[in-house]
Amino acid sequence: MNFELQILGSASATPTQGRHPTAQLLTAGGQQYLIDCGEGTQWRMLEHRVRPHHLRTIFISHLHGDHCFGLFGLLGTMHLQGRTEPLLIVGPPGLDEMLRTQMRVSEVKLSFAMDFRRVDTEQVAEVYADEQITVSTLPMRHRIACAGYLFTEQPRRAKLLKDRLPASLLPHHLARLAQGHDLEADEHQPGLRHADVSTPAPAPRRYAFCSDTLYTPALAQHVQGVEVLYHEATFLEELRERAAQTHHSTARQAAELAVAAGAKRLLIGHFSSRYKSLEPFLAEAQAVFPSAELAIEGLLVSI
Amino acid sequence: MNFELQILGSASATPTQGRHPTAQLLTAGGQQYLIDCGEGTQWRMLEHRVRPHHLRTIFISHLHGDHCFGLFGLLGTMHLQGRTEPLLIVGPPGLDEMLRTQMRVSEVKLSFAMDFRRVDTEQVAEVYADEQITVSTLPMRHRIACAGYLFTEQPRRAKLLKDRLPASLLPHHLARLAQGHDLEADEHQPGLRHADVSTPAPAPRRYAFCSDTLYTPALAQHVQGVEVLYHEATFLEELRERAAQTHHSTARQAAELAVAAGAKRLLIGHFSSRYKSLEPFLAEAQAVFPSAELAIEGLLVSI
Repeated sequence: MNFELQILGSASATPTQGRHPTAQLLTAGGQQYLIDCGEGTQWRMLEHRVRPHHLRTIFISHLHGDHCFGLFGLLGTMHLQGRTEPLLIVGPPGLDEMLRTQMRVSEVKLSFAMDFRRVDTEQVAEVYADEQITVSTLPMRHRIACAGYLFTEQPRRAKLLKDRLPASLLPHHLARLAQGHDLEADEHQPGLRHADVSTPAPAPRRYAFCSDTLYTPALAQHVQGVEVLYHEATFLEELRERAAQTHHSTARQAAELAVAAGAKRLLIGHFSSRYKSLEPFLAEAQAVFPSAELAIEGLLVSI
Repeated sequence: MNFELQILGSASATPTQGRHPTAQLLTAGGQQYLIDCGEGTQWRMLEHRVRPHHLRTIFISHLHGDHCFGLFGLLGTMHLQGRTEPLLIVGPPGLDEMLRTQMRVSEVKLSFAMDFRRVDTEQVAEVYADEQITVSTLPMRHRIACAGYLFTEQPRRAKLLKDRLPASLLPHHLARLAQGHDLEADEHQPGLRHADVSTPAPAPRRYAFCSDTLYTPALAQHVQGVEVLYHEATFLEELRERAAQTHHSTARQAAELAVAAGAKRLLIGHFSSRYKSLEPFLAEAQAVFPSAELAIEGLLVSI
């Protein structure tokens, strides 16, 4: 299954030329999911040829504008394009009221059903599952209710080892084995245990999205060993105090979290507009976690 | 007094690469006013070095997203930048509820007072005045309540003709004449009528903003002789029927309105995303009104 992430926005709240507020596109097994949706996200999707009506579900971390103000326009565009598939939006309480109020006063009746799933941003809890992924909340510590999300692919199948399969197997035998079942003996084969003719199923891959949050070491326990960790890094260490006051993190803190979690890769983003160059973010994070990367617009990551 | 218009967005609702939804900046005597505010307007302001906290008043035509979804983020940015001057937003009913709901659920308490003035979109009525301009509504015919706006500069002073002024005039005489008063005779001068020593005051300049609307010939009577008329032109004549169905106008219709109004200049905009080239809009409008222009991003017009 393809499982990949594309960064659509790297900036924090204040508009900056050439950077855009938080939005990420997750693709899993041909399905597309949007994670946060800052103002202008639909233009980023246009640039990267992502079609709004292909989005299956939208996950919103919190109700600060740089994470959700693109929703109004994106939903309007889906409506103008005649979407008919229902759309689920997962996020903190208040999002539904905000969007429904806008539609009522604009006299817009959407061409599709819009459903909301309100999450408890204080809990680690499964909030979503489909045939490709399951999604759990991760508690962020921000100025308002804010959820991170842990995306886990559905269990993958074990791979059959062809050289251990008898030549006498019939197609229906193969199909049962491929589905993970054992075979009882019959006139064509002697009986086979699935475990004896396959490699173990690979562990499901996981992507953790952590934005926006005060540096919270306890978070590491919930994202142990993730393939890819995105963690906000609004400031550099020189503004560690300001990060704490505004409930944000520094690049170094993001890297420390990645180390504590044993993450395989770290992406940092949500850079404050005060920084013209992002190189110092990379240097600060790599000093602690050498393979840290900048989550900048257009970056494509295979999870 | 400087009186000029800058186009920040030329597109209609569906996102198009390189075009942006409706927003215009009006400058009058050093004051700046925003007319409509589609998604992403604050990035257009950044490009054109317009500072959000310099905006004195915002005028919104109607509550379709391509005319107002940039407000959420723009107000948030003014707040982050610590604006303290009150901000007045003039627009149709519902706008206040939409913005206040968003702020309540996002737990944002603005750093400045935000006031709303609800306009009756069916009337021609003065809705705003300050020391630079007065503003009246123009009734648009759209799918939802929609106001155009007529911006009129405050009356300009007559110009004194120096060669008709006696050399014996003292500074306080000159000041009274400059303010438009007559002078009674005294020991320094023989008495002067203001009208005898000045050119008539030039007529106040006017800018008419008409978006979005079904072609409405009766509108011409309200904008007779305006220096600059902006009129939406969502479609070309080939889609005249679709224009009528969606309560929009064609480039030809915009030009016909300009002719009927005796406008000095015509700007057309709000182009449908279906048109890759805008040249046909210009050709169609200029066939009727030769000095028609495309209101594209960055265009600067002295009124």
